[in-house]
Amino acid sequence: MHLLSIESLSDDHIAAILSEAQRWFDFNRSARRNDHRLDGLTILNAFFENSTRTLLSFEIAANRLGAQVVTMQVEMSSIKKGETLEDTARTLNAMRPDAVVIRHGRAGAPADVAALVDCAVINAGDGTGEHPTQALLDAATLQRHFGRIKGLTVAICGDIRHSRVARSNARLLERLGADVRLAGPPSLMPDGATAMTVDEAVSGADAVMMLRVQRERLEDELGDAPGEFLDRYGLTRERFALAGPGAMVMHPGPINRGVEIDGALADDSERSLILTQVEMGVAVRMACLDLLTAGRRGETGSA
Amino acid sequence: MHLLSIESLSDDHIAAILSEAQRWFDFNRSARRNDHRLDGLTILNAFFENSTRTLLSFEIAANRLGAQVVTMQVEMSSIKKGETLEDTARTLNAMRPDAVVIRHGRAGAPADVAALVDCAVINAGDGTGEHPTQALLDAATLQRHFGRIKGLTVAICGDIRHSRVARSNARLLERLGADVRLAGPPSLMPDGATAMTVDEAVSGADAVMMLRVQRERLEDELGDAPGEFLDRYGLTRERFALAGPGAMVMHPGPINRGVEIDGALADDSERSLILTQVEMGVAVRMACLDLLTAGRRGETGSA
Amino acid sequence: MHLLSIESLSDDHIAAILSEAQRWFDFNRSARRNDHRLDGLTILNAFFENSTRTLLSFEIAANRLGAQVVTMQVEMSSIKKGETLEDTARTLNAMRPDAVVIRHGRAGAPADVAALVDCAVINAGDGTGEHPTQALLDAATLQRHFGRIKGLTVAICGDIRHSRVARSNARLLERLGADVRLAGPPSLMPDGATAMTVDEAVSGADAVMMLRVQRERLEDELGDAPGEFLDRYGLTRERFALAGPGAMVMHPGPINRGVEIDGALADDSERSLILTQVEMGVAVRMACLDLLTAGRRGETGSA
Repeated sequence: MHLLSIESLSDDHIAAILSEAQRWFDFNRSARRNDHRLDGLTILNAFFENSTRTLLSFEIAANRLGAQVVTMQVEMSSIKKGETLEDTARTLNAMRPDAVVIRHGRAGAPADVAALVDCAVINAGDGTGEHPTQALLDAATLQRHFGRIKGLTVAICGDIRHSRVARSNARLLERLGADVRLAGPPSLMPDGATAMTVDEAVSGADAVMMLRVQRERLEDELGDAPGEFLDRYGLTRERFALAGPGAMVMHPGPINRGVEIDGALADDSERSLILTQVEMGVAVRMACLDLLTAGRRGETGSA
Repeated sequence: MHLLSIESLSDDHIAAILSEAQRWFDFNRSARRNDHRLDGLTILNAFFENSTRTLLSFEIAANRLGAQVVTMQVEMSSIKKGETLEDTARTLNAMRPDAVVIRHGRAGAPADVAALVDCAVINAGDGTGEHPTQALLDAATLQRHFGRIKGLTVAICGDIRHSRVARSNARLLERLGADVRLAGPPSLMPDGATAMTVDEAVSGADAVMMLRVQRERLEDELGDAPGEFLDRYGLTRERFALAGPGAMVMHPGPINRGVEIDGALADDSERSLILTQVEMGVAVRMACLDLLTAGRRGETGSA
Repeated sequence: MHLLSIESLSDDHIAAILSEAQRWFDFNRSARRNDHRLDGLTILNAFFENSTRTLLSFEIAANRLGAQVVTMQVEMSSIKKGETLEDTARTLNAMRPDAVVIRHGRAGAPADVAALVDCAVINAGDGTGEHPTQALLDAATLQRHFGRIKGLTVAICGDIRHSRVARSNARLLERLGADVRLAGPPSLMPDGATAMTVDEAVSGADAVMMLRVQRERLEDELGDAPGEFLDRYGLTRERFALAGPGAMVMHPGPINRGVEIDGALADDSERSLILTQVEMGVAVRMACLDLLTAGRRGETGSA
């Protein structure tokens, strides 16, 4: 069993991951966190792109489940010697890992790896493809805060066209019954997307998820004046006031203060779920590693 | 006890490693792989050259034996601050590791380290010197497939002059009773080597081990035309047809498809042992780590 | 509880760390070193500057206590994407580590992190600020060799102005009753420091601690002639002869042979404590990790 995209997950799997993640969230706040269910299993993180938070999150999650954790870093990769991804995948597989967590700059790379290996493959972000564990942690965060996802209105704002976070979140949250609105600079919206301004998307929303600006992509939109992007497309206090009562701010991080989000708003623990998202990230990855390796262990994966 | 070269191993040690490796190979295919014989021991990987597969192989091997595993990466090394290898060795030794696994660009560096430390030193490849665990895994792979090594004819083809893999393999396989043939471009053969064409070496061989082309060394031989090296010195389907019945292809990896080996031939699971070599690599390193630390544990090293 | 500077430690804490370190020093010389007191705890090394020996020392220390160890490397850091240190700190904290070990190029960075997190923070060197675990390991080394610190005369020589090692050591050793003398090139002494030549500082000293020369800072002092710095400010055999009977050489490493210290003198096991310092480094860090996480474990931290 793999975790390559939101589509690859059954409703039952999604429900199990979201439910177990709440349990691991509490577990991670206890004094000692050493579950032993992955004892003797090897989790291999293959990161072809750098990512502090996602890599650490997976490393901590695997450690807390008792796994043996090894990480292949892109700097050491034979890729630099011209090895194909397929050959790297077969080589890693021959070392008999139980799961490979892969981040890669090309959409579809994790699926290509999954087709070649015997173990579970987790997509930890593939170019402009998907980032399913991010969507799952966002859903689990919403569930924890609001007690439900069904019926929530969630605005996702920013560079929707290139964002794997937006893509995975929209698919998952709609499937779970949320009303998802997408908005951003016109040049950064997917072809055929309904035209909605950020103001319109935020109005009455229960949660506003801001995406990280990739500065190199947004030169035209950013303009010359500092703060211009924030004023036009970012989440200011003023704009957030349009959201519904009890609305919360989300962001996959790392944030650009004063670019896509007002810094003080991001820090406001009454309004921001950003750090809960990070904390839930470890919990969701524990749930995913548990579920995906359960078959190999001859177990069901739930506690 | 150290593992610096094939010469440094007694016949008994070689026999023990090859035998134990078969056992670890099976162990690694079981559901949970946590042996505890290295509990409380520290294995330190000191890699002064990058190597995805060798480093991961040692890290996974040490983890599966229960060791504490730490890795010093060249990017972080004080070497960059001008510290001598000798001072680095003494410093690492003072942290009381039980084994240091060293890869270094200079032949003889692991032996220099071994002379200065109290713990076991494993040579994981030293410049144009040796790569003894590669030779041991190749021998164990041959043993597993053919049921014997004595009497086999093994052709090793490519840049023999600079290859530590060729050097260690020739020494080990001849010692185990195989007939080893070396062939490659004339400019890349060792001084005084018997002149044999690749066709001659491959003819009737039981195994053909192709070496990775270091492109920067072979500019003259590669010529301008893509595929020219493959035609002249590489392993094509046509050339491999000269080998004996049941002959198998080997390669230490990573492979250059279409340069030293035909890609489809490398992928042919009926003809290729390349992935078995990778899998055996973890098993052989487990056997080596076990054997080399047995004295420190007051044990014999066998199961 | 944090370990940010020597000032941040109570006398009782210092006494406990120095005493426990002697015990861990012996423990590390035993055949198996797996204490389990940090089972289920997460130690996160956040190194914003490279440092082979300090990072390895902390990683080995945490492993030997049974902790789950993860390391964030600067090369992978979101810092490169413009994330502030404060946001990185909050993000790491949300992953619920039990201690964050931080090395950073800016003095005060660990204290800034400590103000934002729920877990213990250990300063593993902050710019020209402090390096408290280095001072503690130096004190424990002196204690082990001389059986006392009170009443010892310790000369610290080199680039005093920029050295966090000198700063932390002077504060700790004076507090423990040693007579600390500081000397170095005039341009590299702190403002208002008493003028003392290296010869004067060394005369009659029980221990002479040489600091590493940062070549880029000392271009003027080094002059054109090799060996000129050694002759004027370094520790030669001749200069060391001025020290007291039984005097010992120390150095935080890595050493520049023939620059701040005569190479043969550094290697003289009768006169040099340099490798004992490295060995004590692991022991002191075990004592610190134990003490700082004891509260989280509901324990007192001593054995």
